[in-house]
Amino acid sequence: MTKIAILGGSGYTALELLDILLRHPAAEIVAVTSRQEDTPALADLHPRLAGRVDLRCQPLHADRLIARGVVCVFSCLPHGASMAAVPALLQRGVRVIDLSADYRLRDPNVYAQWYRESHHDLAHLAQAVYGLPEIYGEEIPTAQLVANPGCYPQPAILGLAPLVAGKHIELRSIIVDSKSGVSGAGRTPKLATHFPECNESVSAYNVGQHRHTPEIEQALSDVAGEPVEVIFAPHLIPMNRGIFTTIYATPHRSFSEGQLLELYRTYYARAPFVRVGTHLPATKDCAGTNFLDLTVRVVRGRVVILACEDNLIRGASGVAVQNFNRMYGHDERTALL
Amino acid sequence: MTKIAILGGSGYTALELLDILLRHPAAEIVAVTSRQEDTPALADLHPRLAGRVDLRCQPLHADRLIARGVVCVFSCLPHGASMAAVPALLQRGVRVIDLSADYRLRDPNVYAQWYRESHHDLAHLAQAVYGLPEIYGEEIPTAQLVANPGCYPQPAILGLAPLVAGKHIELRSIIVDSKSGVSGAGRTPKLATHFPECNESVSAYNVGQHRHTPEIEQALSDVAGEPVEVIFAPHLIPMNRGIFTTIYATPHRSFSEGQLLELYRTYYARAPFVRVGTHLPATKDCAGTNFLDLTVRVVRGRVVILACEDNLIRGASGVAVQNFNRMYGHDERTALL
Amino acid sequence: MTKIAILGGSGYTALELLDILLRHPAAEIVAVTSRQEDTPALADLHPRLAGRVDLRCQPLHADRLIARGVVCVFSCLPHGASMAAVPALLQRGVRVIDLSADYRLRDPNVYAQWYRESHHDLAHLAQAVYGLPEIYGEEIPTAQLVANPGCYPQPAILGLAPLVAGKHIELRSIIVDSKSGVSGAGRTPKLATHFPECNESVSAYNVGQHRHTPEIEQALSDVAGEPVEVIFAPHLIPMNRGIFTTIYATPHRSFSEGQLLELYRTYYARAPFVRVGTHLPATKDCAGTNFLDLTVRVVRGRVVILACEDNLIRGASGVAVQNFNRMYGHDERTALL
Amino acid sequence: MTKIAILGGSGYTALELLDILLRHPAAEIVAVTSRQEDTPALADLHPRLAGRVDLRCQPLHADRLIARGVVCVFSCLPHGASMAAVPALLQRGVRVIDLSADYRLRDPNVYAQWYRESHHDLAHLAQAVYGLPEIYGEEIPTAQLVANPGCYPQPAILGLAPLVAGKHIELRSIIVDSKSGVSGAGRTPKLATHFPECNESVSAYNVGQHRHTPEIEQALSDVAGEPVEVIFAPHLIPMNRGIFTTIYATPHRSFSEGQLLELYRTYYARAPFVRVGTHLPATKDCAGTNFLDLTVRVVRGRVVILACEDNLIRGASGVAVQNFNRMYGHDERTALL
Repeated sequence: MTKIAILGGSGYTALELLDILLRHPAAEIVAVTSRQEDTPALADLHPRLAGRVDLRCQPLHADRLIARGVVCVFSCLPHGASMAAVPALLQRGVRVIDLSADYRLRDPNVYAQWYRESHHDLAHLAQAVYGLPEIYGEEIPTAQLVANPGCYPQPAILGLAPLVAGKHIELRSIIVDSKSGVSGAGRTPKLATHFPECNESVSAYNVGQHRHTPEIEQALSDVAGEPVEVIFAPHLIPMNRGIFTTIYATPHRSFSEGQLLELYRTYYARAPFVRVGTHLPATKDCAGTNFLDLTVRVVRGRVVILACEDNLIRGASGVAVQNFNRMYGHDERTALL
Repeated sequence: MTKIAILGGSGYTALELLDILLRHPAAEIVAVTSRQEDTPALADLHPRLAGRVDLRCQPLHADRLIARGVVCVFSCLPHGASMAAVPALLQRGVRVIDLSADYRLRDPNVYAQWYRESHHDLAHLAQAVYGLPEIYGEEIPTAQLVANPGCYPQPAILGLAPLVAGKHIELRSIIVDSKSGVSGAGRTPKLATHFPECNESVSAYNVGQHRHTPEIEQALSDVAGEPVEVIFAPHLIPMNRGIFTTIYATPHRSFSEGQLLELYRTYYARAPFVRVGTHLPATKDCAGTNFLDLTVRVVRGRVVILACEDNLIRGASGVAVQNFNRMYGHDERTALL
Repeated sequence: MTKIAILGGSGYTALELLDILLRHPAAEIVAVTSRQEDTPALADLHPRLAGRVDLRCQPLHADRLIARGVVCVFSCLPHGASMAAVPALLQRGVRVIDLSADYRLRDPNVYAQWYRESHHDLAHLAQAVYGLPEIYGEEIPTAQLVANPGCYPQPAILGLAPLVAGKHIELRSIIVDSKSGVSGAGRTPKLATHFPECNESVSAYNVGQHRHTPEIEQALSDVAGEPVEVIFAPHLIPMNRGIFTTIYATPHRSFSEGQLLELYRTYYARAPFVRVGTHLPATKDCAGTNFLDLTVRVVRGRVVILACEDNLIRGASGVAVQNFNRMYGHDERTALL
Repeated sequence: MTKIAILGGSGYTALELLDILLRHPAAEIVAVTSRQEDTPALADLHPRLAGRVDLRCQPLHADRLIARGVVCVFSCLPHGASMAAVPALLQRGVRVIDLSADYRLRDPNVYAQWYRESHHDLAHLAQAVYGLPEIYGEEIPTAQLVANPGCYPQPAILGLAPLVAGKHIELRSIIVDSKSGVSGAGRTPKLATHFPECNESVSAYNVGQHRHTPEIEQALSDVAGEPVEVIFAPHLIPMNRGIFTTIYATPHRSFSEGQLLELYRTYYARAPFVRVGTHLPATKDCAGTNFLDLTVRVVRGRVVILACEDNLIRGASGVAVQNFNRMYGHDERTALL
């Protein structure tokens, strides 16, 4: 049993992580931390867990986690807070899967530009592996620090990787139109996510300015070996969970849908959580799962890729466990089917 | 044209009121007040109103409203704040329709018990008329201060009035089970009304402790001429607007459904906004309207009354305009059909 | 009073049309037809209308409508059925606003290609005016037959018209990504619109194959004076009403957002139902209204236009009344504010 | 490994059952039957299962199931169809967990009265065990035929059992007010469950006439040892899954909430899936689980019990697996946590 701790236990990604890890045959949750002063029981914070777990949240102390045998930590802290807490753990030899954005962007200037604060932990930033298993899977087993990917980047990156890898499309004119459920905005109440404000409504937000843009571009540039640019427009949808991403790309030559499907199926032949289908996907079919569903269409010579996922599982906590499985040599699917 | 002002322009009831009054042929909105310092344009606070109204919010000054010719004020302030603002207006001869709870409960001790603060304006409390037109309609034309009824009390009171008036049911064992959309909780973001917390979920809250309980009992006791008690359980439903109330009562003698429908139709023969039907109602059919729909069933000798309304219109701003129409001698339905 | 009739009274667009026309000071609804054999009361078909209208549906007989004084008909029949019923009315001098697709596409071959049946009424097709008032407004007052536009085409056409009119963008690479509420699919139950199948889910459908594609292209080609092509991808959103359309276009030269907003405001200076704003719109703010809200953004040199509407009102029944107002010389906004 | 088959694979309960059983370490799904002629792949019927199961549906032939080693069958057939198919399996020694209503009501006259058809399999009806493990748990291990309980009856029965067992309440005046998500209505499209008809709406249906009424009464009468009667009013809520049941009972003597909680906790001390809490429950917290959450309140001397569950899991497929676990000697919680 690998003894693990979860930092920042009060939000939605921590709840999903607990839900998955409680079923994991090789992980033992020994601590969950929270900045809340009253050390609430997890079952009070998350009534869904009542009857399954008896832990109370506790303040974060690196040494105490070590003393309890913790060797791997999942950080569900917000960005900024994560890079304040993670270094002490890494220095003590703990392995970290960080669900925040703090270690995702290799270039600290890009981080500063999009997150409007300087990066404080350049040493570890340089070692971090971007935890998208289908692209960076080889580096994950030996990583000490995995920067778990954002929710929007995954369908965008995985939806484009086969075309970008083969340089089949123009790399500077890619359009990524995403539709996300509201849980992606986190658990802190705000007017924009107040029920009567977002129910029965669709809206766009942060068009061209969303922080996941550089993350998408970094990974696709890695795949391409040259700079890739996307126009990214996220939309808020009145549902709890799910992201549906529609991607429009201009191919360098004519493709049939059959050729494209073949290309995608080959590319993802060993990826158990990427399902390439012929039908147009729907978020309901991957909700509650770690699958990322996708298909392709050709319209007036353009390639349209349609990809979807559960933003809390595949988009956060599920892929974190997928990374954990790779880090500790388990079957990638353990606790995820 | 009656010059009117709205106090507290940023919430949902103010938005509905504006929407209705902008269509009213005999009302002119000359001012909307808000405690927000920056005097926002109404169209910025409520983008739905863009292109229909050019007013900006302004701080509340009684004399300035008088100077602008205001003779009638709708107060959408929260309870407590309303009884702080309303007296100055009443003293200047302005008529007030108060959408808060401040003037609804005749007995200030009952107010203090349920709202956990003392009542500060006993003088005007004594003059207030409870603005439920189907019951207190005769007193409204001459009232200076109308205490607009709460959202839950209306289907409860109007659903029971015909039976209570005729003393056809036991008055101490009435069960009122209500299901409300989330807009009833107001526009201030809270965890309980954060989209992912209440979407795809039903919950009960304040069972036996909701502040609308004494309001229901006061009106029904007026109708009965003796004390009436209800067991009131409100529930939160994942929809924006609408209240559905299911009432269970024990009749003193056996009734057929036909007899009950006849009783209800006679009772509401002159009430244009109460629709007594034979089919089980649904909130969608009165959403966006000032109608209150109801029907009755007899099950194992019990009477089950099913009533519904739009909580923001019939339950607040629509009935406020219905009261305004009665106060100023207009057809009760003006601007409401 | 203009005596009007509505053909096909059982669906959602008929309900909205009734709701609006019952408030219209210059229109009198004298008949509503339905193919249902039992001539149901409108208030039974649409309980929302109870207490407002006493009409029963009746079978469609052109002569009877004439005998009752009908001079204008709104057809809410499905495509195919509409062009079977409309000719007899036109031949008797009745003016027709057809909400179906039957008279929208000028070229009967295009109709046959997309609707998979031949057009049966070529004579009247040639006379039809496409009823998008902001583009074809001059032709509407004298039209006998107005082909009311589809729901998706309106935000697409009006979102692009200012740029297309000035030839500011590439006309063959326009991407239109639309998100629609479920009422757009009509009132006939199907698995795809069964509540548990589409609630809590986003999906795409008919990507590159939706019948509104040629309608968008026809109108934009009219505006441009040369062929325009769009890649159109519609998506189904778990809400009742509203369409949000995100358009991506490649400008011929660099524009600032300020320049674009100025361009749009000038173009729509006399269009009371097009609201050009600076904030990103949301469907909730135009739900229940005839407004079409839009704004523009510039992202990496691309122009992104964001437009939304209520699909049943602006997208169907509201714009039909706007056309009616123009046909009969009323203020365009009558009954629509 | 126990070889099992599922009859009627196209609906929601079959999907949930597959989802659970695919995780069960001691069950092997060897066949799924469907009346659809084209033997569709399960992953086409239920795209959520893609990548997890390769089975195709097949027609139901009892002998073929036997030949493939099937020893236990879950029937997800509709009522009527189930009692036509089940006898042949029972006669061949197969054990059956029937999710339909066919074997739930001990008295065939009651069945005929509520289901409006005669019962065709009286022999097996007499042997059936009602599969509510918390009440009839002792009989399940040896049962050949388990009549899996309905969705509504479970929170009603388990919410009342501790009070009824001790004869603490009046047994003829119990009110059960239930609120259910739409998946409870099954997967066949109907107008009442068409998205725009039930979204953003609450309605009541079958008040006093719902078929689960006699099932609730039968089980509670068993617990009481004398006849129990309920007034049962179900309501349709715009969400996919979840039932929230509010029960109003008249106690014979005064109880405090603390006393009642103690009573409930003692009664359910060995029931791992009944969570007795102090907070008011919400369906979101048991959605996706086999837990039934409940608490109690005392209001004006009445007892109010609030209970909720996931209607597809606890209310159908989860409790079916709980029964399977008891039948085959597994830990009751296997595959359900």
